[in-house]
Amino acid sequence: MSSTQQFRTERDTFGELQVPSDRYWGAQTQRSLQNFDIGGPTERLPPPLIKAFGILKKAASIVNVGYGLDAKIGEAIQQAADDVISGQLNDHFPLVVFQTGSGTQSNMNVNEVISNRAIEILGGELGSKKPVHPNDHVNMSQSSNDTFPTAMHIAAVTELNISLIPALSGLRDALDAKSKAFEHIVKIGRTHLQDATPLTLGQEFSGYVQQVSNGIERVKGVLPRLSLLAQGGTAVGTGLNTKRGFDVKIAEEITKLTGLEFKTAPNKFEALAAHDALVEAHGALNVLACSLMKIANDIRYLGSGPRCGLGELSLPENEPGSSIMPGKVNPTQCEAVTMVAAQVMGNQTTVSIAGSNGQFELNVFKPVIIKNVLQSIRLLADGSRSFTKNCVVGIQANEPRIKSLLNESLMLATILNSHLGYDNVARCAKKAHKEGTTLKEATVSLGLLSPEEFDEKVRPELMLYPDP
Amino acid sequence: MSSTQQFRTERDTFGELQVPSDRYWGAQTQRSLQNFDIGGPTERLPPPLIKAFGILKKAASIVNVGYGLDAKIGEAIQQAADDVISGQLNDHFPLVVFQTGSGTQSNMNVNEVISNRAIEILGGELGSKKPVHPNDHVNMSQSSNDTFPTAMHIAAVTELNISLIPALSGLRDALDAKSKAFEHIVKIGRTHLQDATPLTLGQEFSGYVQQVSNGIERVKGVLPRLSLLAQGGTAVGTGLNTKRGFDVKIAEEITKLTGLEFKTAPNKFEALAAHDALVEAHGALNVLACSLMKIANDIRYLGSGPRCGLGELSLPENEPGSSIMPGKVNPTQCEAVTMVAAQVMGNQTTVSIAGSNGQFELNVFKPVIIKNVLQSIRLLADGSRSFTKNCVVGIQANEPRIKSLLNESLMLATILNSHLGYDNVARCAKKAHKEGTTLKEATVSLGLLSPEEFDEKVRPELMLYPDP
Amino acid sequence: MSSTQQFRTERDTFGELQVPSDRYWGAQTQRSLQNFDIGGPTERLPPPLIKAFGILKKAASIVNVGYGLDAKIGEAIQQAADDVISGQLNDHFPLVVFQTGSGTQSNMNVNEVISNRAIEILGGELGSKKPVHPNDHVNMSQSSNDTFPTAMHIAAVTELNISLIPALSGLRDALDAKSKAFEHIVKIGRTHLQDATPLTLGQEFSGYVQQVSNGIERVKGVLPRLSLLAQGGTAVGTGLNTKRGFDVKIAEEITKLTGLEFKTAPNKFEALAAHDALVEAHGALNVLACSLMKIANDIRYLGSGPRCGLGELSLPENEPGSSIMPGKVNPTQCEAVTMVAAQVMGNQTTVSIAGSNGQFELNVFKPVIIKNVLQSIRLLADGSRSFTKNCVVGIQANEPRIKSLLNESLMLATILNSHLGYDNVARCAKKAHKEGTTLKEATVSLGLLSPEEFDEKVRPELMLYPDP
Amino acid sequence: MSSTQQFRTERDTFGELQVPSDRYWGAQTQRSLQNFDIGGPTERLPPPLIKAFGILKKAASIVNVGYGLDAKIGEAIQQAADDVISGQLNDHFPLVVFQTGSGTQSNMNVNEVISNRAIEILGGELGSKKPVHPNDHVNMSQSSNDTFPTAMHIAAVTELNISLIPALSGLRDALDAKSKAFEHIVKIGRTHLQDATPLTLGQEFSGYVQQVSNGIERVKGVLPRLSLLAQGGTAVGTGLNTKRGFDVKIAEEITKLTGLEFKTAPNKFEALAAHDALVEAHGALNVLACSLMKIANDIRYLGSGPRCGLGELSLPENEPGSSIMPGKVNPTQCEAVTMVAAQVMGNQTTVSIAGSNGQFELNVFKPVIIKNVLQSIRLLADGSRSFTKNCVVGIQANEPRIKSLLNESLMLATILNSHLGYDNVARCAKKAHKEGTTLKEATVSLGLLSPEEFDEKVRPELMLYPDP
Repeated sequence: MSSTQQFRTERDTFGELQVPSDRYWGAQTQRSLQNFDIGGPTERLPPPLIKAFGILKKAASIVNVGYGLDAKIGEAIQQAADDVISGQLNDHFPLVVFQTGSGTQSNMNVNEVISNRAIEILGGELGSKKPVHPNDHVNMSQSSNDTFPTAMHIAAVTELNISLIPALSGLRDALDAKSKAFEHIVKIGRTHLQDATPLTLGQEFSGYVQQVSNGIERVKGVLPRLSLLAQGGTAVGTGLNTKRGFDVKIAEEITKLTGLEFKTAPNKFEALAAHDALVEAHGALNVLACSLMKIANDIRYLGSGPRCGLGELSLPENEPGSSIMPGKVNPTQCEAVTMVAAQVMGNQTTVSIAGSNGQFELNVFKPVIIKNVLQSIRLLADGSRSFTKNCVVGIQANEPRIKSLLNESLMLATILNSHLGYDNVARCAKKAHKEGTTLKEATVSLGLLSPEEFDEKVRPELMLYPDP
Repeated sequence: MSSTQQFRTERDTFGELQVPSDRYWGAQTQRSLQNFDIGGPTERLPPPLIKAFGILKKAASIVNVGYGLDAKIGEAIQQAADDVISGQLNDHFPLVVFQTGSGTQSNMNVNEVISNRAIEILGGELGSKKPVHPNDHVNMSQSSNDTFPTAMHIAAVTELNISLIPALSGLRDALDAKSKAFEHIVKIGRTHLQDATPLTLGQEFSGYVQQVSNGIERVKGVLPRLSLLAQGGTAVGTGLNTKRGFDVKIAEEITKLTGLEFKTAPNKFEALAAHDALVEAHGALNVLACSLMKIANDIRYLGSGPRCGLGELSLPENEPGSSIMPGKVNPTQCEAVTMVAAQVMGNQTTVSIAGSNGQFELNVFKPVIIKNVLQSIRLLADGSRSFTKNCVVGIQANEPRIKSLLNESLMLATILNSHLGYDNVARCAKKAHKEGTTLKEATVSLGLLSPEEFDEKVRPELMLYPDP
Repeated sequence: MSSTQQFRTERDTFGELQVPSDRYWGAQTQRSLQNFDIGGPTERLPPPLIKAFGILKKAASIVNVGYGLDAKIGEAIQQAADDVISGQLNDHFPLVVFQTGSGTQSNMNVNEVISNRAIEILGGELGSKKPVHPNDHVNMSQSSNDTFPTAMHIAAVTELNISLIPALSGLRDALDAKSKAFEHIVKIGRTHLQDATPLTLGQEFSGYVQQVSNGIERVKGVLPRLSLLAQGGTAVGTGLNTKRGFDVKIAEEITKLTGLEFKTAPNKFEALAAHDALVEAHGALNVLACSLMKIANDIRYLGSGPRCGLGELSLPENEPGSSIMPGKVNPTQCEAVTMVAAQVMGNQTTVSIAGSNGQFELNVFKPVIIKNVLQSIRLLADGSRSFTKNCVVGIQANEPRIKSLLNESLMLATILNSHLGYDNVARCAKKAHKEGTTLKEATVSLGLLSPEEFDEKVRPELMLYPDP
Repeated sequence: MSSTQQFRTERDTFGELQVPSDRYWGAQTQRSLQNFDIGGPTERLPPPLIKAFGILKKAASIVNVGYGLDAKIGEAIQQAADDVISGQLNDHFPLVVFQTGSGTQSNMNVNEVISNRAIEILGGELGSKKPVHPNDHVNMSQSSNDTFPTAMHIAAVTELNISLIPALSGLRDALDAKSKAFEHIVKIGRTHLQDATPLTLGQEFSGYVQQVSNGIERVKGVLPRLSLLAQGGTAVGTGLNTKRGFDVKIAEEITKLTGLEFKTAPNKFEALAAHDALVEAHGALNVLACSLMKIANDIRYLGSGPRCGLGELSLPENEPGSSIMPGKVNPTQCEAVTMVAAQVMGNQTTVSIAGSNGQFELNVFKPVIIKNVLQSIRLLADGSRSFTKNCVVGIQANEPRIKSLLNESLMLATILNSHLGYDNVARCAKKAHKEGTTLKEATVSLGLLSPEEFDEKVRPELMLYPDP
């Protein structure tokens, strides 16, 4: 804080505190900032959660007006909430993950910011709590214990829908385009890393397409339970101090505001005390991490070289790999994606531990759960977009190399079994392996087939499907 | 091996090996036993996988007869497969998890055992491979690379259906019965472990019911993808060396044999090279572990005491807790369940790492994946059954203690706000807290209410729902 | 970027790029920023790593002058490196974790910033690479492949020494002070959460002291291997393009600059391709997380209440727990610490996966490894400090409550065995348990002891040690 | 149980139970068997723990005789304990991991077996508890709460010493022999999987040697804390009901019996309530898992082929890879080792979660902790032995292939920089890359060097070390 910074006085039941004049937050936020000096700004609760809180507070205000909240106050709250939703007030939410495990302080941060902003809109004095009180009006009919889990679900559902699913769809489409473009390219298969029977490069990529398609289905599959909202449970799940029907109405309002379907949770006790739906959702993210690890690993190995690796694919060159060696294209996008995968797989452990530790009527690992879920969503979404744009769309098949490897392979011998008999085929393959020649050379030199016969019979393109 | 043990000679392409005469396995099994002395008998692949292999081989034989396999051989294979399915040949499957990562050796173990048993049925000589050859007949139209993942899926789907889901249903029903039995018991709520507003013990248990109900839904939710079978992909996913339509027919046959719906996987490349469906399935198991950790923790804390804990619940006494102290009932079933949870949460890491490591056309972490998935299923199922039978059904509410704690609580003051105003209520509560008296005593001594008025107004049973 | 922002042109072997005029970075940094739009600013590589790079580049320059680098250039580099070390240039390091897995782009970011700052110092033109070239001078005798792991080790060792160990020492001392202050307070012990034989509150806290003391030893135990530096291995570990003796000299120089002992790694191939030392170091952090989880859980349960929990401890009240209920002090510091623990335990999975995935001569998960290690160190250090200051030092024993619980306990009956015989003692305890009386009342009413005899014999303070 | 099985009656404070006549266990074991039907025989507590209990009970008996236990009873106990230590009574320990979390039932299992065996030795009647009582004599001065953690430490320290460290030493020596045998073989280096500057195959293997050597040091590094024993803490850590000095004496006795140094834990409260030393120990196992994953991955990729992979190494062929294709040697030992690594890395999560969950005076996740630690030790030891014997010692370098790849590489151009200047060298390399020729061909065709000059200057063996 520079010496010229201006402050105003805010107060809570503990007393007065000095708050920077250019910030809307109040005493409880300031107190948390001072008591939880853990991790610094990078550990702040992420913007999508703040946005979700804005949506929630706006919806609550609309419903509360229906239950009797003064309409003028309600409108000011809604306008202030819109400012929160737009992201323009993000600097007014300084609290870190490692605060109270209920997220109460962040709920109060939202209440304080909206209240002060609404007071400002209505021409009042910041910090006066008049005419818009953070608890009585902004938090009306709510408790931290139901708002925080509600905001968690809104944020997760929204980010899955607007960020992750589109990013995955883009990746799937790009892989699918490659699969189609490569469907004519026959290549050696590899099992146990060892040469195996052939397939097309398109078939190989079709496996990746299937993985990402399934991944999208998995994400969609968690939405039904993730779209259930705790709101209306208040302090312990009973709904004390809220109104009958408030829970249903607010879910409807949030559905309207987001364009995404939300419903009230059938059991509020579960919704406050457990976060199984988020553990489940992260399970779907974890599968995606595993899928991306596999795909990115394959692509970087297939692109390894240029001379001493597999060299079947050429990956786009996005930055200098080496100033002296042309062709040294490091698979940096694959590296970023596999690091994302490692991060997400570790977040799975964090979310599981945190999710398993609810106690009686409340789970108090809420902030660390939502932080990890939102980080995983963002990294998977950004990582998929970057990988698609900077790698997948530019992948080229190195056809001469693919063909050369295929022809060198001894595995094609399999197809001669019905022509020459197993024992003769084994002789050919063993001779070629021992002498380092091609299968064709060995077969011809053993006098079993002419070169023309060999070429006619040994056609990898006949090995790509079941027998008719 | 005792010196009097008898052996016969078996052979594979590597040469001859001595195999115990009273075992049906052949040379490749014996070779694996010798080459992979890792972990000992407790690390053997689990019986449900062996059973699944029996089902698969029986189904394959039925389909293969349709494609031209000699019916007599087919029938012998089916009869031998029935012996595998029944479990009576379990001692003939000695191979451990830590073998080849494709599970080839276990596929061959099955082929060898069924072949020798079928030979025996047909009056032939063990080890002769006549008239039933392990590869040509038992493994006909198959490859280890598609049989092993098929058996993995059959085993997982079966165990989820016949073991885990019924066990969870039993647990849910037992919890639900308790929730209903306890619905009249009003108790103190606890958030942050601190006294909070009241709820009923039935409401508290209803949260557990919801968790387990959701858990069942989650398990059912993974079945669609887990019921897709790799069979028909053979070595690399192309289906080389099998027949067109074989994949669909075998899935139909397996459906008939198991009574559970299986379909052929839409993309065999994905089905061999990735095990995302099993990673996903374990994700559902992981959520269950988190749920059970929460439920068991709550129950043991609520049952803590008898004198110096919370003491709200009495858990059944299944074994001596202490020879000297009556009432020392250790929550041993809760302890077993939370250890199950810890194991399953670690297995999640193993399955994820293994699942992410597919390479090109094959994932070679198959045995360790299915071992962990089946262990988690079994532990959750057995643990749920044990917990239900030996703990949940016998839980008693300690009503006098619950009532006493509730009455001591200062939290009930909340309800007086509308009668006395916030400031007066705060005075009452602070006085009671400071002087260690009840809220009633403090309120009366401050002259704010008569004892009768207090009893009339401060009724926790009015704090259990939203305002009408 | 606002439309008025100024740019300058920088170039690398790929061509020209526009870079903000007020930033020292060059083309390769800018290219990474554009190609790796993953996660945003919160995913930037952390300041301690940037500082470590500053130290490394300064040391390299000093050693390079000894090997013939122009002294004037060397001095400018060292001055620029000092600016990096001081943190004043942190805004010039915008790259995120999810970039190339070797961290090459961050090494180039450092080279570019130091080169441009040194050019500025010497009066040259930014972006001209003259007279101080980022590769030829700043990166002289180095490769990204040895600088990045060197900076990882410098950063980790430094943060462990200057941040974590002092924070843990503070926590241990605070717990130890409480242990000593509480050594006279006899309380009920709890095993399986059930009442057990007594101990002192000081003894209970002494277990926590031991855990933290051991944790400090564990951290110190990883320093020998973590203090070994990869520098001198250059691209693949051979040391090509550096000078014999460079590795030893630079470790000496870094030792001087940091005041912490570093040595050159005995095997550079291991030092580039594996990060076992960092996986090991995180293992020690993981144990700390487990210890803190245990300690914080105990303290919040012992402080639960105020009326309906265990209530043996009073935790400091740092913020409003509830506006209506005095005494509702939420154990928020414990909650923050247990969330830190969950994060660190998940980071352990990430670091292990990343660490296990080295390939041939290089591990390309470097940035995600160091990010997680440094996050864990910071969270544990900050969390320990916050917990110490805002919770531990203010813990008060609630002696009347502790005494009351102890006296209610039936467990004290154990001590009467030698006086009354096992059977009589069991009768007393069972009677008290059944009738809800104290052990004393039961014993007296059975006529086995007078009240005075009971008080003389049943003295918990005699149950705190082995028999002499 | 067959219908002809014989039973005898055993009893505990809960009443009578029927126990198989040919088993030494008693009522409490039988009760646990019935109450914890979780997981079946493969989930039994492992033999090394039973052996450790045998050692502990023998040592306790020796010390107890010194404190006054009847020498005849003591000797019978010691003889019975020897039978436990020898493993001949392993079938008498049927209890599974998922029992009470203190392991009390397993401690009683040991007490019952030793008591009945000692009774048998002394000519008494099984189940009579005379003249050797399971509690009064076998468990004298002990509690489950200190014996179980003591047996955990004895078992872990013993297995690390007699099993894991020798296995790792064998692996290190085998890798070291290969490193020395391969020190003359110059090969292409690979970073980011891309061709890089050369190193020797011996240098590459030296990195593996260093990893395993460090792994051994890490294991040794955890022994000091793992060798501290909880024995003497009895129920809650105070040592009530044991004798002053008992703790020190029993550690000395265990040291004598095992030949391994054990000491009494300085703080028994920590030793009962936390298992940080085992979490720490598993951290060292986890690093080994990461190291082995890296080494086994490298070796299988370097051995990939035979025609379409890297093909630099030939791995021993231990079993048929394919009946038709010579040279298809699946890297099955590598696959087993990497599956071991995945299991151990997951066990790390389990052990951490379990270790973090101590409550007050006791951690009740003891059985699952020691099960996972011992499984990890055994799998790493067996896996290392199998890998050494069946893979590492038989690895052959495929020198023609290595040389051919090296010569094809364009990376060697680096060495010409000082001769031809950077720009000319870049021209050569780019031409070769574009035209698919060797660097030599390109350089010669550009007229920059004669073939002889090229051969003289481009010598990879000069690129293996720092400049002198």
